[in-house]
Amino acid sequence: MIDFEDVAAAARRIAPHAHETPVFTCRALSDLADAELFFKCENFQRVGAFKFRGAVNAVLSLGEDEARPGVATHSSGNHAQAVALAARIRGVTAHIVMPENAPAVKVAAVRDYGGTITFCEPTLASRESTLREVVAETGAAVVHPYDDDRVIAGQGTAALELLGQVDGLDVVCAPVGGGGLISGTAITVKALLPEARVVAAEPEAADDAFRSMKAGRIVPSVDPQTISDGLRTSLGQRNFAIMRAHDVEVVTVSEAETARALRLVLERMKLLIEPSSAVPVAAALAGRLSRGARKARIGIILTGGNVDIERLGAILEANEGSR
Amino acid sequence: MIDFEDVAAAARRIAPHAHETPVFTCRALSDLADAELFFKCENFQRVGAFKFRGAVNAVLSLGEDEARPGVATHSSGNHAQAVALAARIRGVTAHIVMPENAPAVKVAAVRDYGGTITFCEPTLASRESTLREVVAETGAAVVHPYDDDRVIAGQGTAALELLGQVDGLDVVCAPVGGGGLISGTAITVKALLPEARVVAAEPEAADDAFRSMKAGRIVPSVDPQTISDGLRTSLGQRNFAIMRAHDVEVVTVSEAETARALRLVLERMKLLIEPSSAVPVAAALAGRLSRGARKARIGIILTGGNVDIERLGAILEANEGSR
Repeated sequence: MIDFEDVAAAARRIAPHAHETPVFTCRALSDLADAELFFKCENFQRVGAFKFRGAVNAVLSLGEDEARPGVATHSSGNHAQAVALAARIRGVTAHIVMPENAPAVKVAAVRDYGGTITFCEPTLASRESTLREVVAETGAAVVHPYDDDRVIAGQGTAALELLGQVDGLDVVCAPVGGGGLISGTAITVKALLPEARVVAAEPEAADDAFRSMKAGRIVPSVDPQTISDGLRTSLGQRNFAIMRAHDVEVVTVSEAETARALRLVLERMKLLIEPSSAVPVAAALAGRLSRGARKARIGIILTGGNVDIERLGAILEANEGSR
Repeated sequence: MIDFEDVAAAARRIAPHAHETPVFTCRALSDLADAELFFKCENFQRVGAFKFRGAVNAVLSLGEDEARPGVATHSSGNHAQAVALAARIRGVTAHIVMPENAPAVKVAAVRDYGGTITFCEPTLASRESTLREVVAETGAAVVHPYDDDRVIAGQGTAALELLGQVDGLDVVCAPVGGGGLISGTAITVKALLPEARVVAAEPEAADDAFRSMKAGRIVPSVDPQTISDGLRTSLGQRNFAIMRAHDVEVVTVSEAETARALRLVLERMKLLIEPSSAVPVAAALAGRLSRGARKARIGIILTGGNVDIERLGAILEANEGSR
């Protein structure tokens, strides 16, 4: 299992390439949460999401011989763009397997970063078999989106920055999908601020992390229906092991709570965030991150801002749904 | 006519109360504009707009006897909230005249800042007569939204900060409605960076500033139809005089260009801005702010982020309209 030294090394490795993102506060949201909220704005990160940290750390960690044939992954989301940009920085080819029904805007973004795309059927089986074919043909190194030590170490650098920007946090909260971000966050926070709690926030409708932590074994999600498309993935093995070893707590929020949080961040903070990023905000607003009477100082990682603007209206309306 | 000393004094006066807002850059937008763009983020200012600068400078400039009966204005927009918050800071009453059809969210915002609201018919005549009645009754000091030296000096502090944050700008651009911001900006920029151009950006559909500067006299807009609701106002006397004295240029953009700019700022920068704020961005993207072959360094004041989220979908769709 990796430790804080790996995160610190990742921070040094990615420093010339990743943005140090700002931390924002908002009186209105802090009041609503009855807490002091500090928002780590990874929606301002390169490619619009924290995923760049893990991808560029993984790609830069490869040896010369490993890197030469390029890198490969399957993804239709932020990880695809992150790997494409990381490969361009390293000067190697990124082979990205994408489902043929991926939104045109995502395909264009990967191409803009210089990625080579191989299309496949829109099933996990087809994605995986196509990736295997691409790797067999090219010899490219696979960069898994979360179940990868170098990726986890890279994602941990967001919390490392946050702890340097804000003193005395009681809680650090991030969303959990596959668990890359929350596991890197847990390693970092427990090393630097052992008394702080690390909380993973998850949609009720995709609560595999909640159930897995309770059961003591990975309980995968089966076709979860949530507006938080980045959080439909089930936990990875490495991620789950790190979460257990570092006492990560898990809380859940409803779809309506997520939509309301996204809307409040847009209205009050003037920031566009993805539904996945609104999940920890919703947990804070619902009082699920505080404990005891004192106002908690809560750090929240706003993971990204890549929303399909065509879908924004529909996402905001999920607000009107029942809880 | 006020000069830069008034702006500098305003900056000292409001410093304890106003935010120094950040300047953002965005590679994608700079590339699209073929320029280097620097965005002064007044959407992060208190009350969500630059209007707070002028209002708090005006309210803090009042003598003790003048301030005691409170302050008054008519507005259904950002100026109402700005005056309400400024009055609360000064510890006096804000009397805000609002049309009875003002959106509930704007009414609630003024109340949240402690303002006392008097409703009137939704016509300019009724707003003005109601304001006169309120002033006759209370003795409150009127704070005009733009045709007021203290307000102009306050608005000029945004450009003052910007010039301290970014070196060597060739152009500074802000939208023009009544002209409070652009006149304060012109005073500041021409004092500190005399070679830089100051450009006012305006909707084609509300091009009274363009026509007024050309005619050499104020040519008011008559019921202009534009999504940039903050820019429907015609130029004020003081504002026009300052614009002429400082060689302010005026450029116009279409509704579709404004909507596209708003959408790009949301998609690429993850920032919510008002349609009024998108007008100078649209001018930059259309190449109307550059001159000559060299890439211009362009400062753009993003004036505010107060958008009715219910209307956001409709605003983004104005994109689809013809130019």
